Amino acid sequence: MCPKLPLLLVFFLYYAITSLGSDPDPVQDFCIPSTGIAACKNSSAATVKDFVFSGIKFPGKFSETGLAATSVNVNIFPGLNTLGMSFVRADFEVGGINMPHFHPRATEIAFVLEGKIYSGFVDTENRIFAKVIEKGEVMVFPKGLLHFQMNVGDMPATILGSFDSQNPGLVRIPNAVFGSGIEEKLLEKAFGLNSKEIAKLRKRFAPH
Amino acid sequence: MCPKLPLLLVFFLYYAITSLGSDPDPVQDFCIPSTGIAACKNSSAATVKDFVFSGIKFPGKFSETGLAATSVNVNIFPGLNTLGMSFVRADFEVGGINMPHFHPRATEIAFVLEGKIYSGFVDTENRIFAKVIEKGEVMVFPKGLLHFQMNVGDMPATILGSFDSQNPGLVRIPNAVFGSGIEEKLLEKAFGLNSKEIAKLRKRFAPH
Amino acid sequence: MCPKLPLLLVFFLYYAITSLGSDPDPVQDFCIPSTGIAACKNSSAATVKDFVFSGIKFPGKFSETGLAATSVNVNIFPGLNTLGMSFVRADFEVGGINMPHFHPRATEIAFVLEGKIYSGFVDTENRIFAKVIEKGEVMVFPKGLLHFQMNVGDMPATILGSFDSQNPGLVRIPNAVFGSGIEEKLLEKAFGLNSKEIAKLRKRFAPH
Amino acid sequence: MCPKLPLLLVFFLYYAITSLGSDPDPVQDFCIPSTGIAACKNSSAATVKDFVFSGIKFPGKFSETGLAATSVNVNIFPGLNTLGMSFVRADFEVGGINMPHFHPRATEIAFVLEGKIYSGFVDTENRIFAKVIEKGEVMVFPKGLLHFQMNVGDMPATILGSFDSQNPGLVRIPNAVFGSGIEEKLLEKAFGLNSKEIAKLRKRFAPH
Amino acid sequence: MCPKLPLLLVFFLYYAITSLGSDPDPVQDFCIPSTGIAACKNSSAATVKDFVFSGIKFPGKFSETGLAATSVNVNIFPGLNTLGMSFVRADFEVGGINMPHFHPRATEIAFVLEGKIYSGFVDTENRIFAKVIEKGEVMVFPKGLLHFQMNVGDMPATILGSFDSQNPGLVRIPNAVFGSGIEEKLLEKAFGLNSKEIAKLRKRFAPH
Amino acid sequence: MCPKLPLLLVFFLYYAITSLGSDPDPVQDFCIPSTGIAACKNSSAATVKDFVFSGIKFPGKFSETGLAATSVNVNIFPGLNTLGMSFVRADFEVGGINMPHFHPRATEIAFVLEGKIYSGFVDTENRIFAKVIEKGEVMVFPKGLLHFQMNVGDMPATILGSFDSQNPGLVRIPNAVFGSGIEEKLLEKAFGLNSKEIAKLRKRFAPH
Repeated sequence: MCPKLPLLLVFFLYYAITSLGSDPDPVQDFCIPSTGIAACKNSSAATVKDFVFSGIKFPGKFSETGLAATSVNVNIFPGLNTLGMSFVRADFEVGGINMPHFHPRATEIAFVLEGKIYSGFVDTENRIFAKVIEKGEVMVFPKGLLHFQMNVGDMPATILGSFDSQNPGLVRIPNAVFGSGIEEKLLEKAFGLNSKEIAKLRKRFAPH
Repeated sequence: MCPKLPLLLVFFLYYAITSLGSDPDPVQDFCIPSTGIAACKNSSAATVKDFVFSGIKFPGKFSETGLAATSVNVNIFPGLNTLGMSFVRADFEVGGINMPHFHPRATEIAFVLEGKIYSGFVDTENRIFAKVIEKGEVMVFPKGLLHFQMNVGDMPATILGSFDSQNPGLVRIPNAVFGSGIEEKLLEKAFGLNSKEIAKLRKRFAPH
Repeated sequence: MCPKLPLLLVFFLYYAITSLGSDPDPVQDFCIPSTGIAACKNSSAATVKDFVFSGIKFPGKFSETGLAATSVNVNIFPGLNTLGMSFVRADFEVGGINMPHFHPRATEIAFVLEGKIYSGFVDTENRIFAKVIEKGEVMVFPKGLLHFQMNVGDMPATILGSFDSQNPGLVRIPNAVFGSGIEEKLLEKAFGLNSKEIAKLRKRFAPH
Repeated sequence: MCPKLPLLLVFFLYYAITSLGSDPDPVQDFCIPSTGIAACKNSSAATVKDFVFSGIKFPGKFSETGLAATSVNVNIFPGLNTLGMSFVRADFEVGGINMPHFHPRATEIAFVLEGKIYSGFVDTENRIFAKVIEKGEVMVFPKGLLHFQMNVGDMPATILGSFDSQNPGLVRIPNAVFGSGIEEKLLEKAFGLNSKEIAKLRKRFAPH
Repeated sequence: MCPKLPLLLVFFLYYAITSLGSDPDPVQDFCIPSTGIAACKNSSAATVKDFVFSGIKFPGKFSETGLAATSVNVNIFPGLNTLGMSFVRADFEVGGINMPHFHPRATEIAFVLEGKIYSGFVDTENRIFAKVIEKGEVMVFPKGLLHFQMNVGDMPATILGSFDSQNPGLVRIPNAVFGSGIEEKLLEKAFGLNSKEIAKLRKRFAPH
Repeated sequence: MCPKLPLLLVFFLYYAITSLGSDPDPVQDFCIPSTGIAACKNSSAATVKDFVFSGIKFPGKFSETGLAATSVNVNIFPGLNTLGMSFVRADFEVGGINMPHFHPRATEIAFVLEGKIYSGFVDTENRIFAKVIEKGEVMVFPKGLLHFQMNVGDMPATILGSFDSQNPGLVRIPNAVFGSGIEEKLLEKAFGLNSKEIAKLRKRFAPH
């Protein structure tokens, strides 16, 4: 009878596992930001247009690194207010990259609409989880962890990402570290680079 | 001594049970469900495959109403555990519908991958917010509200939905109301239908 | 025009107040909605009356289905604001029903003050959990699940319900589905009814 | 200058809107504690009895202060597990009291089933909010605040309380302060009492 | 009259600001309370000074019980708004005490900067967890539980406490119970003291 | 084989324990991780030692960058489990730095115990908020944002930090980016460095 116990454990555990974790809640159906004093429009003034976003039918403008990303958070799609979610469309030129970055307030689920993308994240033990994912595949980046992507196919690629925050935030590592004005000496020690090397990086990422 | 172990388990478990509960913010990077006693695999045993899902590259099996929906929640993609998100792929035949339903534990963001979809929700004041949305457009369905979709184009259509819960739950109205065994008399009064009409509906939605 | 601005502020603020805050963890003892600019009255202006509600000593007005329900949420008892709870008194005539409905933002605990009530809910697997409960018994309806009640005794019955949200919301299935204006064709396919049958239902539940 | 104010409001409001908050959630319909290894019973093994509690039809046993309180939390009604709520029945003899106490993890809503109850709470500024409430009236005690009750009518009284936690906890002030073994000297200084007075109180509230 | 409106707004707004948001998940990087209509200052107007607090370099004013405590919550350090944390500096004269108290909305972590402190808490089963802790040691007081401290060394002592709420609240037991005006009879029964003894305590803790 | 099962349980349980519970609202007073099957020790077996941590009386071991940081999270101080907080002691040699890093799951409050520290963070708009703070001053780093510190005084310096998570996580930018194995080409493009420069950085931060 004893030898069967472990099997039993496995069997029951599946149930246990799926009961952990959870999410936040609104206190009304929705809250379309108002242009008056109230935080929300009178709900009877809301229309279906408040809940539909049409601005990501096509790629945005490409950056130098071959990425065109349109973040659709509550700031540009106000209907998301209090609903706890937002999304992003990211298009990649051949070889284009989405530099190492993280979202301080959200998990991300990325769905490949087109192409082949080297995609991964690094956990808090410095372990990397990376892989080439293809059209129709989905990858999840846990809340707040550093992640990155690169189009490794020979055609443009597109990803649709979703977040569990109406405003996940975005910290691009190179810009935040070298483009924000952190003391040069601190950066030298942190990266083991000399002042000339740091100066070059700071120049590259300096805000225009 | 072995036979006593299960008793011990029962004894200690009472304590364990009342300390689980539920949660917004994870307390570790991720928690891949384990097949052992622990709730999570040792994190050093996790691999990138735990975070990638490849099962929605193609449509699933179509229902009588012309819908093929694959819900990708924590039950079929365990890597989502504690990460607060999940997703769904829904394919529609021409004229196919996603019947009125709701997710008790999540907001949904729906992105049209292909086609023209009449799509909408009803708020708690019985107001409808519905519209035909097209390829590349996005619609948000607020947490817990009743919503529905119908392919009104002349081609198959596909939607990708995301949720802010690892297990949003799904209540299909016709099945929950007429297929669950609620007292006939109560249904007659609720819908103003006679016993014959209710019987027809109950038969249609009876579980097989 | 200027002198009218304050009036305008008061007018809009009522809306603002009930949309702020959140159910989980308040950040002050309480927050009685203000009629001024601030979200909360100055706490020194709060009185005990702000925390007492006297409007459910007697049944409300009965509906056609034999139910008189008074929802006491933050909109009619402002003292509940930010406190994460609300309640309802429901009186049933003999044979009266509380039609299938759900609360998108709360669990409900129902205590039978008087009578015999057939009471139940349906989970996301379409399983029904229903039973006649009597005076002094309590039933819990899990968050967001469809539930219903019917007075099966030979005397009037009364239930007191509590919710873990200041504004749980209420979706009555027949009204939301047939009274909101969802496309006829979609409803026909969803319920397997013909256009005449759907028209009858839509007429019955059309808003007055 | 005045006419510009509305513009100013619009300008600033955009910021205000994005500062609203949110709330926790279960990740399954329900989770009946299991007697096996799993945290929850297999959901198909749950029955309606798991969700109904029949143990407060009658008063419990009265204490020396004239109170009979039955706390119905997850420990005695396991079906509440993960559902975020619990409740209590409190019966008062004439003149009976519910001594100053607080619930560290919940707001409470108290409904008077019978009688006249002097009922109140004290906020964190030491302001009291107290009043005699009667049959059919409801009072709310904000999360974590000290509150108390006394039957001031000439008949027994009964209250039904609800909480927004499956296990709100209960700290009775006299017992926690004088019956737990806190250093005598500390208590003397805190209350300005001499060692004899403190000894008397400690004796009175010492655990049996 | 119009020119005064902005002043009015500023006046009321201070209240509004501290009542918005919630401790769990912020939806922006930070939200420095504004003196305008918006809840938050435009983020580009924030400066590093908004995030630094310099007011606890030295002890505050000592009370009769030998305690000087400075609570640094969102009300005196507005930069904490929406960030979910606050702190306190507590200095103790030799023999000084921090009377039995609790924080309705937070766990506390106390670090001993200097001295020997008898420090403890009481759980909801009336069990005491108390011990003398010394310089460099840390003790945690679980959310909402009653706790207390006394300098048992022969030198002044200092503690730095942190909270997981921007406004944890503070209920000092003697003041809340005897200084708030709770009915004398209720207190007599609760503590088993006669009216003279209660009168003495009420006099001692009456607000000035 | 049977006798080994309990050992196995103990072994795996350590993992289970630190992945359960949650930061927001606990559902019991505390939950000391158990070495048995239950997630929590029977609460009557808890002692005051479970809530006191004595391991940061002195600095830890200094790194190459002149930092000795001891993170006191739930993994080394199990009493913090479910209590929603943790802390850290950080000692700096003269000129020592705490390299740019972030905590994916927490806000941090840093109190200067000794010394002069250049301390700052970068928001999601790449704005820096940095300043030299001194003994007795406090700085707050908003949830998930990149921050850093450097001892700019001529004496050793010490900081005590607190977090609103039992396990905030720590991502050190140089190690996560250059020491985790992200594709070289992606890093070249992200930082605008050539393969030799990247190789040097990868070598420096390669795990030993």
